[in-house]
Amino acid sequence: MTAYRVADNAPPGPARHDSSAQPAPALQPLSLEGRMLRALLHAFGDPPVQIALWNGERVGPAEPVATLHVPNRSTLVRLCRDPDLQFGELYSSGQLPIEGDLGRLIEVLYQGSAHPGRNSISALRRLGQWLHRRPSNTLHGSRENIHHHYDIGNEFYSLWLGSTMAYTCAYFPTPEATLDEAQNAKMEHVCRKLMLRPGMTVAEAGCGWGGLALYMARHHGVKVRAFNISREQIAFARERAKAQGLESNVEFVEDDYRNIRGSYDAFVSVGMLEHVGVENYPGLGEVIRGCLKPEGLGLIHTIGRNRWKPMHRWIDRRIFPGANPPSLKQMMDIFEDSEFSVLDVENIRLHYAKTLDWWWRLYEESRDKVAAMFDENFVRMWRLYLAGSRAAFVTGEMQLFQVVFSAGTNNKIPMTREHLYHP
Amino acid sequence: MTAYRVADNAPPGPARHDSSAQPAPALQPLSLEGRMLRALLHAFGDPPVQIALWNGERVGPAEPVATLHVPNRSTLVRLCRDPDLQFGELYSSGQLPIEGDLGRLIEVLYQGSAHPGRNSISALRRLGQWLHRRPSNTLHGSRENIHHHYDIGNEFYSLWLGSTMAYTCAYFPTPEATLDEAQNAKMEHVCRKLMLRPGMTVAEAGCGWGGLALYMARHHGVKVRAFNISREQIAFARERAKAQGLESNVEFVEDDYRNIRGSYDAFVSVGMLEHVGVENYPGLGEVIRGCLKPEGLGLIHTIGRNRWKPMHRWIDRRIFPGANPPSLKQMMDIFEDSEFSVLDVENIRLHYAKTLDWWWRLYEESRDKVAAMFDENFVRMWRLYLAGSRAAFVTGEMQLFQVVFSAGTNNKIPMTREHLYHP
Repeated sequence: MTAYRVADNAPPGPARHDSSAQPAPALQPLSLEGRMLRALLHAFGDPPVQIALWNGERVGPAEPVATLHVPNRSTLVRLCRDPDLQFGELYSSGQLPIEGDLGRLIEVLYQGSAHPGRNSISALRRLGQWLHRRPSNTLHGSRENIHHHYDIGNEFYSLWLGSTMAYTCAYFPTPEATLDEAQNAKMEHVCRKLMLRPGMTVAEAGCGWGGLALYMARHHGVKVRAFNISREQIAFARERAKAQGLESNVEFVEDDYRNIRGSYDAFVSVGMLEHVGVENYPGLGEVIRGCLKPEGLGLIHTIGRNRWKPMHRWIDRRIFPGANPPSLKQMMDIFEDSEFSVLDVENIRLHYAKTLDWWWRLYEESRDKVAAMFDENFVRMWRLYLAGSRAAFVTGEMQLFQVVFSAGTNNKIPMTREHLYHP
Repeated sequence: MTAYRVADNAPPGPARHDSSAQPAPALQPLSLEGRMLRALLHAFGDPPVQIALWNGERVGPAEPVATLHVPNRSTLVRLCRDPDLQFGELYSSGQLPIEGDLGRLIEVLYQGSAHPGRNSISALRRLGQWLHRRPSNTLHGSRENIHHHYDIGNEFYSLWLGSTMAYTCAYFPTPEATLDEAQNAKMEHVCRKLMLRPGMTVAEAGCGWGGLALYMARHHGVKVRAFNISREQIAFARERAKAQGLESNVEFVEDDYRNIRGSYDAFVSVGMLEHVGVENYPGLGEVIRGCLKPEGLGLIHTIGRNRWKPMHRWIDRRIFPGANPPSLKQMMDIFEDSEFSVLDVENIRLHYAKTLDWWWRLYEESRDKVAAMFDENFVRMWRLYLAGSRAAFVTGEMQLFQVVFSAGTNNKIPMTREHLYHP
């Protein structure tokens, strides 16, 4: 016997939770734990998730997408006090085993977190506390933040990023494309948007492991100066350039984008803006204005949002400190003051969901290697991050924007976008 | 002998005026008129424009793009006191004849008006005065504003808009396309962006003379409810629907977009947002949210700007009272609060320059008919408007944005944009 009873003839929870769906079957909690659990589930919009307690009690629908096993009272207290953060902390540390479909679980939690029942005031208060604790994106703070994520080790990333080592959203021209094909297609798509021609010069801000810089040089005959503040990535990229015989075409510079100087035919940044910080957008615009020729094209590829909200706190703490995906409205601060003209915005959110499908699958295939490199807690932490990121793009919590722009007076811009598809 | 002497061996003014070009040759003004003229030209960045006074004096470079003939002192005083407004007023009324290339003249004035020498404080002060005198875009004010422009007479517009009667930016798939071909291509481009399929329902806000509504019904088999508050346009559109046998497929409703009700597979608005007013954007988003199905797509096509500034005052007074082309940042107020996701933004500014080339040419071919319908002042006023609008798109003063969006949770969105080019 348990203190809570799920109505025996309740229908299974809907596969996709929304506001018009049946609420979770009513419970009659008798204990403190029951009330805490009910509050917790309600805060997430009564999703089709089951919670199994240490004493055998179960709360939630009979056929959930997943079941969370809470092994003791103190775990439950931590979870209820701060679910946004503690869900990730407890799962990663093995204190909150999950049975069922982790991907779907996070999707329904994302959908639930948009539920009006969420206490946005307290979320904002907590945000304030967090904003004060992390290194900001000053020149020094950026180095600290970037080191946290990207210098974990190139070997780790190479387990699941595929041969391109591109750690940004791919572009699947067909549903059957492989990850490597889709990453190459993304790079080609970016090059076409920039209308690269042999002999042109390109500045790249935030070049990761150098895949795009090398692609541009090899396939489009351009000269690239590529900037990155991650020492490990720069070292790796230089090795690749040497191995591919492209050392004289691509210069990898271990420096901050704010120090880009010179004059280039194109400016490109794929997956850096997330780390720039909204307060630095006008300054980024000035940097680009200073280095892009009057008839040059620029492209920024970034994770974004339909409207701004703070980064998920667990992701901020454990995975990406200081990251902040902007809304399009916020992005315009890059362009407006520097008199740029936005020519093209493409939102390829669903391509990131597919990219993360691939990464997660490859990651799980290498989970033993990851455990040997780190430990089981790390395995779970990154699983949650990959599954959670995939869910964010599936549910529309996150977007992926590619924005092409030029000086406002540039009349050498393309008339149509047909060349992107049939060059 | 004149009081002002242009240096005889001065180089001709540059064909395209920019900040690095030679300044206008130095003058040695001796009179009040000379000082006023110098101030006037300087306020516009010393453009390659000549001014010929009633007493034979000429100010400006020896080979200007155009010469303004100032016939008397009172004209000069009016022009200097308020050049933004009086240039249009005086030209239209025949008190400021222009010799040379009117299109290039306005281009260099636009380029000059971005010059740092412009007194933006006094421009803002004047803006304030103007903002208070015009009808605002309340339900009543909108009708008054729209009547001013669109109810001039369908016959007038039919002289120069081509057979489609589309009074919005066309889309030239090739440089050789005719105006009619380009207007049809624009409508097809919009339909492809909306992924229309036979049997779908479409709400159109601001339908002009009904061309797009009829195109969608005829070529894509959809049912359209099209809204417009211009009585003359609605009457014309209904006649067209009858003539084409499309009365049962397209309903033209003489009503404000704020009164759109129902549930539609697509929402489209081409060339209305300019008249909506930024303060009404969240309300427009709510209207769309209320009528667009969860898996529907929306498209807004509008004149815009790289960054906001007030509408040109003469255009506001004489041509388009209450119009306000937004920046992309401002446009986001339509989408963010209503949880829409922006999928695609295309800026086709240079297509509007080409469209206006066509309109202006066709207008001049009909100038005698226009003079017979109205008078010579009207002929000049609309010439200036067409030439000025063309210059605004050539110089990057104005943009043309097409924005595609959907509910943020819609996963039935297209993966790529290839279908726009090869359906």
